[in-house]
Amino acid sequence: MTIETIPQEPPQGRSPPPWNNRVLEKRATQLTLIPSAWHLSTPFLENPPASSIETIHASGILSADELAWTETTDIRDLVELVKSRRVTSESLTTAFCKRAAIAQQLTKCLTEIFFDKALDRAKELDDHLLRTGEIVGPLHGVPVSVKDRFNVEGVDTTVGWVGLTNKPAKSNSSIVKLLESMGAVLYVKTNVPQSLMMSDSYNHVFGQSVNAFNHALISGGSSGGEGALVGSGGSVLGIGTDIGGSIRVPSNLQGLYSICPTTGRVPWDCSVLHQHYLVPPVAGPMATSLATTEYFMESLFASSPWNLDPSAVPIPWRKELATPPVNRKLRLGVVFDDGVVKPQPPVARAMRETVDALRAAGHEVIEWDTSLHIATTNLWTKGILADGGQHCRSLCQIVDEPLIEGMIVGKETDLLAHQEREQFEETKLTLQTSFLQQWVSSEIDALLMPVIPWVGYKPKTWVKSKQWLGYTGMWNLLDYAAVTVPVARADRRLDSVGSGANEEWEGHSIRNESDAFNHMQYDIDLVHGMPICVQIVGGRFGEEKAVAVGKVVDELMNPTPFHP
Amino acid sequence: MTIETIPQEPPQGRSPPPWNNRVLEKRATQLTLIPSAWHLSTPFLENPPASSIETIHASGILSADELAWTETTDIRDLVELVKSRRVTSESLTTAFCKRAAIAQQLTKCLTEIFFDKALDRAKELDDHLLRTGEIVGPLHGVPVSVKDRFNVEGVDTTVGWVGLTNKPAKSNSSIVKLLESMGAVLYVKTNVPQSLMMSDSYNHVFGQSVNAFNHALISGGSSGGEGALVGSGGSVLGIGTDIGGSIRVPSNLQGLYSICPTTGRVPWDCSVLHQHYLVPPVAGPMATSLATTEYFMESLFASSPWNLDPSAVPIPWRKELATPPVNRKLRLGVVFDDGVVKPQPPVARAMRETVDALRAAGHEVIEWDTSLHIATTNLWTKGILADGGQHCRSLCQIVDEPLIEGMIVGKETDLLAHQEREQFEETKLTLQTSFLQQWVSSEIDALLMPVIPWVGYKPKTWVKSKQWLGYTGMWNLLDYAAVTVPVARADRRLDSVGSGANEEWEGHSIRNESDAFNHMQYDIDLVHGMPICVQIVGGRFGEEKAVAVGKVVDELMNPTPFHP
Repeated sequence: MTIETIPQEPPQGRSPPPWNNRVLEKRATQLTLIPSAWHLSTPFLENPPASSIETIHASGILSADELAWTETTDIRDLVELVKSRRVTSESLTTAFCKRAAIAQQLTKCLTEIFFDKALDRAKELDDHLLRTGEIVGPLHGVPVSVKDRFNVEGVDTTVGWVGLTNKPAKSNSSIVKLLESMGAVLYVKTNVPQSLMMSDSYNHVFGQSVNAFNHALISGGSSGGEGALVGSGGSVLGIGTDIGGSIRVPSNLQGLYSICPTTGRVPWDCSVLHQHYLVPPVAGPMATSLATTEYFMESLFASSPWNLDPSAVPIPWRKELATPPVNRKLRLGVVFDDGVVKPQPPVARAMRETVDALRAAGHEVIEWDTSLHIATTNLWTKGILADGGQHCRSLCQIVDEPLIEGMIVGKETDLLAHQEREQFEETKLTLQTSFLQQWVSSEIDALLMPVIPWVGYKPKTWVKSKQWLGYTGMWNLLDYAAVTVPVARADRRLDSVGSGANEEWEGHSIRNESDAFNHMQYDIDLVHGMPICVQIVGGRFGEEKAVAVGKVVDELMNPTPFHP
Repeated sequence: MTIETIPQEPPQGRSPPPWNNRVLEKRATQLTLIPSAWHLSTPFLENPPASSIETIHASGILSADELAWTETTDIRDLVELVKSRRVTSESLTTAFCKRAAIAQQLTKCLTEIFFDKALDRAKELDDHLLRTGEIVGPLHGVPVSVKDRFNVEGVDTTVGWVGLTNKPAKSNSSIVKLLESMGAVLYVKTNVPQSLMMSDSYNHVFGQSVNAFNHALISGGSSGGEGALVGSGGSVLGIGTDIGGSIRVPSNLQGLYSICPTTGRVPWDCSVLHQHYLVPPVAGPMATSLATTEYFMESLFASSPWNLDPSAVPIPWRKELATPPVNRKLRLGVVFDDGVVKPQPPVARAMRETVDALRAAGHEVIEWDTSLHIATTNLWTKGILADGGQHCRSLCQIVDEPLIEGMIVGKETDLLAHQEREQFEETKLTLQTSFLQQWVSSEIDALLMPVIPWVGYKPKTWVKSKQWLGYTGMWNLLDYAAVTVPVARADRRLDSVGSGANEEWEGHSIRNESDAFNHMQYDIDLVHGMPICVQIVGGRFGEEKAVAVGKVVDELMNPTPFHP
């Protein structure tokens, strides 16, 4: 692949769009924010290894210590390093800034870069600790990244829209305020797709974000930049958002642990007019260990977010629910295939292996009846499109930027009038009630299913497909919490077609357009080695339960850590 | 006043509306559901005392035991009576049916009456206890009433609309299911205003509900029937709903203890298409003691409503928060006058006496800055009207029933288009955030203020006034929990105009139309003796805190019980 540092030239014969200079300027500024000592040399840029990790190691930009710190998966170890004054926040922040800078050059994972501000803050925190002997909070001195959906005072929140460049935020979003009050150091914001409504993070301002582990593949979306950054080790903890899979899809593609919570647990007060009230958006953590995601949740709730954000619900982190039961085995549901889009062989194998391991350990796993999934997903789609695309159109209009084709954006005919919205809410409540009945009567601790039925796409493939977001979107409509845990990697040896190992896949009868695309697009040579997560759904306000089950799955499937 | 048992004759020269027979039939059926032995004799009907209580005592329909049981204010005492088998549920239910039947004849507090079903259920519960020695749940055998907003299988949910008569509900609302699972006996549903959007419970189907303690005055709304029934001792616990004061106003007018909770605590899945998503409606308890309301909440949450209702939030009753702190005094805010409508003398005195008593007991009470109240109330109004009246019009159209004039119902010009709704949500969040800042930084345990700035109205007065619902509605927009506690009674001796005791009122400069109406309408002779509550606002999910403060206020202001 080529590394874009400026927008591609317009196709022959066409003049650049009127907003081209604005983009050129934004990208040039972005580049100047990376110190030249951290620029990759030409050989790396011209012919980089497929994975960011290799380049980061080979580049020589990070010291051995810096590599070790940035490859620490449990954030508590980093907090301990700073707290015990074995490492300063300044050194740690420098290490993450370096690594994020390299990841950016390889994966276009960043939007806003503010290393100077971060280092000033780190020094302040070091001074504070030295002077008082006290830490500021549970994340004292540790860098944390956030998706370019949250406001950080003084820098843009473009959310990938050209029209929103050069409009620095005047205040911080709640989650940013809370992270700072917990002692975190903010240093970068991460890339997104235009409109946020696709699983491929590409926009006209910052270009195409790609996967941390294979630059030929996408990083996912809409928290794709965050996925690529955390996957590259450029951040130990990233905060993403999710309305249909935007935390979980990039987490899956980079093999990350993540929590997509129920509304009201993690403050979500984002920039730009709010949208999609019919389907609630949420914010949540992404990391290379489950421990980091849990520590974030526990620390966040200990800092009473409900005293800052009027939508936050005062439920503390219920440690007892997040601990696997000791006096009984788990009872779990599983969806191998939702009946709409058949998961590709590596995904199917990852699910099988997980269930086999759980059963071998004595846990009960029952097949889940997916009868309600199609109606739930269809209603999710209706809710997402309900504004008839007005929001995106108005953002396009600021500078006459075109809408990227193939995204999930409503047309005028999708606009729901008042009574249709009431009917929508009524239908939603009915579905939620039926689903809750099924959930409660099944007596499961959690439900296991794929995050997505595919393994990896090349850039700009996703928008061409008639995507089925049933594996993720329905949980947003139901407002159920879900956790991702990496459990496998695609493997040419096991997942090839024609080897006889995947007869079911080979003999599969195509069900619909989405299924056809997913089937046709499968190419084990393209995706060999890519991570695969299991999605663990814990129910409404079921974050802790899902984490408890995640711990069991993680221990069984990852006897050696999945990362680095 | 005259007791209507059939609709009034149409004004001279006009023919009755086409739906008149439907109403006549409904009322006739309603009357047949009251056994003739419980019908009041002609002298009572023709010239009843002002208060239901007097008639109930004088009528001789209830035995001494039945009077005592129905005047028990703490529901736990009734549960104990049944549990210990000193009284059967059948006897207790009979007593409440009798008293409700009388209250209905005096105050028009009921809509649906199903005594037979209730007595069957009571006998079943008695049998169960006798057979197993176990109670079914924490409300075993005790009758509980619900507003005619909830579905009870087999009877209508007219919500006061002629077009919804003769359409028996096919299933129970969540709260009804939960009450039954807790062992309660349902026996009646209670009267409401057409559209629910007024503080005077009057509709074309069931007529005018009046106050339990003075039949010349209204019972309030929209849970006015519930207020009159509980006030009359015809129910020990009633479940109302509130979107702008509908639990608190009738509770105030009948001197009841009530909890208007934050969304998600008490299941609210009502009949008829949901409305007003921009302002969330809630359900909550009304009773003659704070202990009863707390016991209901505690018992409800112990039965895991979140396993039945997908909107319920899994927070148990936090007993520790509902207990007044022992190691410190309270810090409370107070609003004597919100600056828009000046409270009438008895209300002002009730607030003063409460604050004086709290201060004398060593508690700190600070005056609350009401700067945000007008904007919050105006946004509440905008949200309530946002459907442009479509919902009410469609309900009118079923039988060509006219809309009652003066209610809070949107006009077509009030309809908010999609982007206006987004803007509404944005403004709401901004206001909620500012308010939360004020709340948290004030460090108060709760805020005290009047429920309404008036004491009592004659029927059909409310709809003529340009009502200011700022004392109640703003808390619905903010989604803050509030509790009512009775603290005083209007008193001719103390609250007269011209006596010199109320100079501030006499010299008051009128501020606006609502204030003018409220000032002009004050008549101590009309409202002498009527109860007045203080509203205790506990913040979002602040039910327990408000109850804790309510206990302190109740103990100070009611050394002898307010009821019966």
